[in-house]
Amino acid sequence: MSKPPVWYELLKRDADTMARLGRLHTPHGIIETPVFMPVGTQATVKTMDPWELVELGAGIILANTYHLHLRPGEDLVARGGGLHKFMSWPGSLLTDSGGFQVFSLADLRKISEDGVQFRSHLDGSPQFFTPERVMEIENALGADIIMAFDECPPYPAEPAYLQTSLRRTLAWAQRCKKAHHQTEVRSLFGIVQGGTDPALRREAADSLVDMDFPGYAVGGLSVGEPKPLMYETLSYTTPRLPADKPRYLMGVGAPDDLFEGVERGIDMFDCVLPTRIARNGTVLTSRGKLVIRNATYGEDWRPLDEQCDCKVCRSFSRAYIRHLLKAGEVLGIRLTTYHNVYFLFHLMKNIRVALEQGTFALYKQEFYRQYGYNGGNAGEDV
Amino acid sequence: MSKPPVWYELLKRDADTMARLGRLHTPHGIIETPVFMPVGTQATVKTMDPWELVELGAGIILANTYHLHLRPGEDLVARGGGLHKFMSWPGSLLTDSGGFQVFSLADLRKISEDGVQFRSHLDGSPQFFTPERVMEIENALGADIIMAFDECPPYPAEPAYLQTSLRRTLAWAQRCKKAHHQTEVRSLFGIVQGGTDPALRREAADSLVDMDFPGYAVGGLSVGEPKPLMYETLSYTTPRLPADKPRYLMGVGAPDDLFEGVERGIDMFDCVLPTRIARNGTVLTSRGKLVIRNATYGEDWRPLDEQCDCKVCRSFSRAYIRHLLKAGEVLGIRLTTYHNVYFLFHLMKNIRVALEQGTFALYKQEFYRQYGYNGGNAGEDV
Repeated sequence: MSKPPVWYELLKRDADTMARLGRLHTPHGIIETPVFMPVGTQATVKTMDPWELVELGAGIILANTYHLHLRPGEDLVARGGGLHKFMSWPGSLLTDSGGFQVFSLADLRKISEDGVQFRSHLDGSPQFFTPERVMEIENALGADIIMAFDECPPYPAEPAYLQTSLRRTLAWAQRCKKAHHQTEVRSLFGIVQGGTDPALRREAADSLVDMDFPGYAVGGLSVGEPKPLMYETLSYTTPRLPADKPRYLMGVGAPDDLFEGVERGIDMFDCVLPTRIARNGTVLTSRGKLVIRNATYGEDWRPLDEQCDCKVCRSFSRAYIRHLLKAGEVLGIRLTTYHNVYFLFHLMKNIRVALEQGTFALYKQEFYRQYGYNGGNAGEDV
Repeated sequence: MSKPPVWYELLKRDADTMARLGRLHTPHGIIETPVFMPVGTQATVKTMDPWELVELGAGIILANTYHLHLRPGEDLVARGGGLHKFMSWPGSLLTDSGGFQVFSLADLRKISEDGVQFRSHLDGSPQFFTPERVMEIENALGADIIMAFDECPPYPAEPAYLQTSLRRTLAWAQRCKKAHHQTEVRSLFGIVQGGTDPALRREAADSLVDMDFPGYAVGGLSVGEPKPLMYETLSYTTPRLPADKPRYLMGVGAPDDLFEGVERGIDMFDCVLPTRIARNGTVLTSRGKLVIRNATYGEDWRPLDEQCDCKVCRSFSRAYIRHLLKAGEVLGIRLTTYHNVYFLFHLMKNIRVALEQGTFALYKQEFYRQYGYNGGNAGEDV
């Protein structure tokens, strides 16, 4: 059987955990996994240009179907040659299905078996997303990996609702698979839902595996549930997914979640965290988060992270970056964004090296100690 | 006599005009003149990082004394090692004197012979600028070229007021010269004022030349007077300035003003124009300005300027940049800013090449024809 446009190559399994080292092959390059994917909601990773992303070693980035459908519209992007050409991005792209945004951003939504009616958060215009429509939109946008249209239930949710929702998501996944143009340039991933209910998650995973997608996402986590519950859910979900297919944990990207996700067999992560907190003036460092806007950094001549060798940390002081942020200068949020993305890329690279060398547990322990997880100062600044 | 920290090397005079080709030697590098200097008001050229400025070939940029005094304060910058180190800028720097901002931005100003009392536009705090105080501030900031504290009268102004104002500016220039620390790393330039009155301009130029500054600026132009009057004023002012010193036309940088200024013997220009209009979504092109935000560019797949070879024009379409601007994405104003600064740098480079080859008049004619000056479409979009 010939390989699909996007396929996973398993290189090594960790001896003690479900962690794995691998490669994601796409029409726009080969990506070492586990990988963190920055989010480029409106066809741009906020504040960054493509050259910076290449410089940082970004192999794959996300774009949001919901946002691009509303503005500038998938037809315009398609007439411009597709998303890669439109945004001048040489690497790989993944579009989400819009499901999450329909349920979190859009107004006045009405769900039926057929799809979701909602109003644009931009101009109130009426919209109707069905699995077939979303496949049309994602295929027009033209990412390497496109996601099936799903419903993302909140936490907590009633068991009966979770069950109804999952049945619908599975039916939609089937319709997406049928509607997806079987091109040689795009792969459609299925999304495992089911909240934090073990039986539903297992049913979701098994049903999607039966449908035979080239990759699987775990969705509906990091939506308000306690972290241990997210990790537990992963622990019983990923083992049901095939070892020869990539596994993607959607919307998750805090440093500890990366370690815990990798440990539970996840290969791909995406999250707005590093870029969003950067714009609020918060940076990730080896010793935890720093709210660089705070007065305490007004005359701090050290780099954002004393252990970081990114070009921002090699060139600028906390005092200068704080000045830029206070003065409302764009360069301020550019520098914090660049550093935060570098930080997560560097962390992921270290995780891959540790997996290669069989020192994952050791590296995790050392990172947690320094960062201040487990009773330390992690996050107390934010 | 030993050379001052900043000195001018005259390379060639144009045969038909007052235009000249030269080099500005500073402690942070040698700058080919005529030169356009981008403005970095708050210790950053808005939206740009230092690497981009180096990539574009920027040799010297401005910073604003008024703004940096108010935030973060010159003492903080000095404790951080001075402006070059603070903002990680390897090239040359020039600080203005704050005179223009005190008269255009600050609230409740009260002018006396001693100086100007005003309130900060940021927090209303009372401030008092004297020539001596401004020298302290500029020396603390530590640019390569610092400007004397002057009064910049509006246009039109009463003859009697212009005369009083000029006497004060000349007295202040003398006091600045006396107060300026004669370091080996900074040069103080005098500023010729006098509105559009030929007698006052001549008096100003002659008096400042008597004081023997290492460089001279022409200030108080482009403040509302008709362009022909600005050019006429330059025509009788620059000939009175010494040929072996650099001449700087302050706050002027529209393409036609660069040609007309160079033709009248100006070596240095600065202006917020390219960066400010970029943030409003307007770009400079070989065929005039384009308001790229306009709906007409929604599906325009051409680069901003079809004759430009900057990296923005080699990579992105008008349609994509318009999408970014409409969506409020930072990358949009980054790309328009980069292109506009490149455009003026490229224009200045072409002017220098034309001066070298003796084809300045021809190049000017061809640029004006294409840009749409002289009855064309120049600027009609804005």
